[in-house]
Amino acid sequence: MADYRKMWEELGMDVESHDNLCEVLPQAIGDTFLAQENRPEKMDYFDFVISEVHGVRPAELKKFREEGGKVFGTFCAYVPDEIIFAANGIATGLCAGSQFWVPAGEAVLPANTCPLIKASLGARFSRTCPFFRLADMYIGETTCDGKKKAYEILAEDVPMHIMDLPQMKRPVDVKKWADEVRILKDVVEKVTGNPVTKENLAENIRKINRKRAALQRLYDLRKNPNVPISGTDVLLISQIAYYDDPERFTMKVNELCDELEQRAAQGVNVAKGKKRIMFTGTPMAVPNWKMHSLVENCGAVVVCEETCTGTRYFENQVDESGTTMDEMIDHIAERYMKINCACFTPNTGRIDDILRLAKEYNVDGVIDVHLKFCQTYDTESYFVERKLKEEGIPVLEIETDYTETDAQQLKTRVEAFIEMMD
Amino acid sequence: MADYRKMWEELGMDVESHDNLCEVLPQAIGDTFLAQENRPEKMDYFDFVISEVHGVRPAELKKFREEGGKVFGTFCAYVPDEIIFAANGIATGLCAGSQFWVPAGEAVLPANTCPLIKASLGARFSRTCPFFRLADMYIGETTCDGKKKAYEILAEDVPMHIMDLPQMKRPVDVKKWADEVRILKDVVEKVTGNPVTKENLAENIRKINRKRAALQRLYDLRKNPNVPISGTDVLLISQIAYYDDPERFTMKVNELCDELEQRAAQGVNVAKGKKRIMFTGTPMAVPNWKMHSLVENCGAVVVCEETCTGTRYFENQVDESGTTMDEMIDHIAERYMKINCACFTPNTGRIDDILRLAKEYNVDGVIDVHLKFCQTYDTESYFVERKLKEEGIPVLEIETDYTETDAQQLKTRVEAFIEMMD
Repeated sequence: MADYRKMWEELGMDVESHDNLCEVLPQAIGDTFLAQENRPEKMDYFDFVISEVHGVRPAELKKFREEGGKVFGTFCAYVPDEIIFAANGIATGLCAGSQFWVPAGEAVLPANTCPLIKASLGARFSRTCPFFRLADMYIGETTCDGKKKAYEILAEDVPMHIMDLPQMKRPVDVKKWADEVRILKDVVEKVTGNPVTKENLAENIRKINRKRAALQRLYDLRKNPNVPISGTDVLLISQIAYYDDPERFTMKVNELCDELEQRAAQGVNVAKGKKRIMFTGTPMAVPNWKMHSLVENCGAVVVCEETCTGTRYFENQVDESGTTMDEMIDHIAERYMKINCACFTPNTGRIDDILRLAKEYNVDGVIDVHLKFCQTYDTESYFVERKLKEEGIPVLEIETDYTETDAQQLKTRVEAFIEMMD
Repeated sequence: MADYRKMWEELGMDVESHDNLCEVLPQAIGDTFLAQENRPEKMDYFDFVISEVHGVRPAELKKFREEGGKVFGTFCAYVPDEIIFAANGIATGLCAGSQFWVPAGEAVLPANTCPLIKASLGARFSRTCPFFRLADMYIGETTCDGKKKAYEILAEDVPMHIMDLPQMKRPVDVKKWADEVRILKDVVEKVTGNPVTKENLAENIRKINRKRAALQRLYDLRKNPNVPISGTDVLLISQIAYYDDPERFTMKVNELCDELEQRAAQGVNVAKGKKRIMFTGTPMAVPNWKMHSLVENCGAVVVCEETCTGTRYFENQVDESGTTMDEMIDHIAERYMKINCACFTPNTGRIDDILRLAKEYNVDGVIDVHLKFCQTYDTESYFVERKLKEEGIPVLEIETDYTETDAQQLKTRVEAFIEMMD
């Protein structure tokens, strides 16, 4: 990584502690990504972005703020980026996928909290992540008990705005969510000092839709019997989607897809003879590459993720036909309420999604993986696994965290699962 | 217990397994309640109700149903009984406080779920609780991840209606809750076939308010320097409040209070020289008497519970001034939204309550006790304990479940806590 120490110091970071985090990154990137054979050339952009993860994008955000811009940190696929960008703000993901941050999170949270939430608070309080320093305001939501309560502790250290996500999916709930989007619009306008105009909002709806379309194009290419890209590489792209500049990201994903189309036509296949696996479950925040790396090193290939760092992030477009502010906000609410997060009761749409995706991606088996202490996904596993079994699709449930303590046990289980599919 | 085997068989219960549960009850009641010295005479009603817990009230409910009445099972202090009784239905609590039911719950739920939720599902699926058999419909709510997801599994076996409880407490959220109360009214009218009239609703608002007033009167008596009743006895009354006939219960509590006033005037004190303890945290569903029994056997006295089986159940009245249906429902929603459950974000009102109650009941120390894997109360402990420490009030945090495995360790910790207050 280039020398960003001055920037990190200016951001009030604990630079010495941060050095320990940076030290392990090149090795992890090398082992996880660069060591793969026959990679698409256009992965070079994403390799660069991750190798400079705490430098290049933070430097852009810092410059943006120095010019008067406001940055909004988000934790969830449910927060509508359209609104933030329409007020000339920048939205950036704040989910934290490293065990490095967990101990500082456990200093304020129960140990029985999912590692993603512990790492998020740890990243803030340990002052070792520039994104957590650069956000002028965090946007939280009431998706789960762990997050909604953790936000109260965060709010002692940083301005927080919370969106009350309904816990059901009746038409009345979509209306309630539209009202929350309206409240968010007011908040974002106040913080940025910029009005959200109809023109700006329409433009940003199209912009974020194009980003979703690019990700859908990438995922569609994985449906090919010749799989032109590894799941590990796609996971990295999905993670970068949360914090990169949307337009540049869209362009880079489309450039990659151009190459992947050529590869597919040429019969390039990173997965020859390998079993096709779909992940379903909790998000895998950067740099949590544990399960993809494990599965693909066991000789299978990941072809789809029904997760928030997967299809839940980009499936469904915002209807672009709205002409009034109210229509556009209603369309935004409708699109986001189609995300089938396990926070809803009931959440039968997710089961439908899983069965549909298993067919679309022609998978040999599903790994239902959730982070420890994620009650919603853990409980919903009851239905996920029963339904997959009824449909004759092999399924393996895994509960894990960010540590390496279960690595050997997981390897044994995944190997046995892959063998079983023969 | 009298012979109710015929009734249990007619209710489709697993009577043999149920026998095992019934076998241990007399001993538990004897040890926990009857062995106490100098008890109020008017506890005899509550002793009778608990000794016949699966008989006398279930028989009433069964008769009520045979006459065409409908029974609604509830899990939460947030479900407005007023609406159910106004439709000539009966509301009855379904929370389950025994380890007996946990294994059957764990057959369908993650082990990392709170014992109250596991026991609730276990009680249903093991067919060993008549209340779970007698309810025509269960009314759930989205108070926590564990419950809202568990309800989906219950819904495969029994009709469920879910109320979407907002997760915040802005004026807009009180309105949303009023809309949920309106939806509940429609559902209850449909199931019972009885309209909720203005007259019926007004009458039942007054009826449930009188019940709250009786419980407030009981609690006020505990503020006396001469404590006329043990905390263990009051806990039993609070538990029975959830399922007994409201009018009879109110009368019996008031009769007890008459006696307690006399005892107070005569200087009767069940707590001479004992430290005064307040519990705060998660509900203690019947027959979970573990912590009260432990603390009072360690030589302290429990004078208040800031729990759902305590002040959260009865504090605040529904405004009786409403004359239209809309006004009455708005007043019901306003009252229930004053319950400071840890499911809300933020939930500063609960901290205010705890400090207020600690003064009102002149407590020497607070035990912040929550059931294992209850993320909301566990996370909120961060604020509860910090604030109590700032105020110089001794506080002990305890996480426990329904097993006896931690009994010795808890005893040691509670003894040390009580000694420390000297």
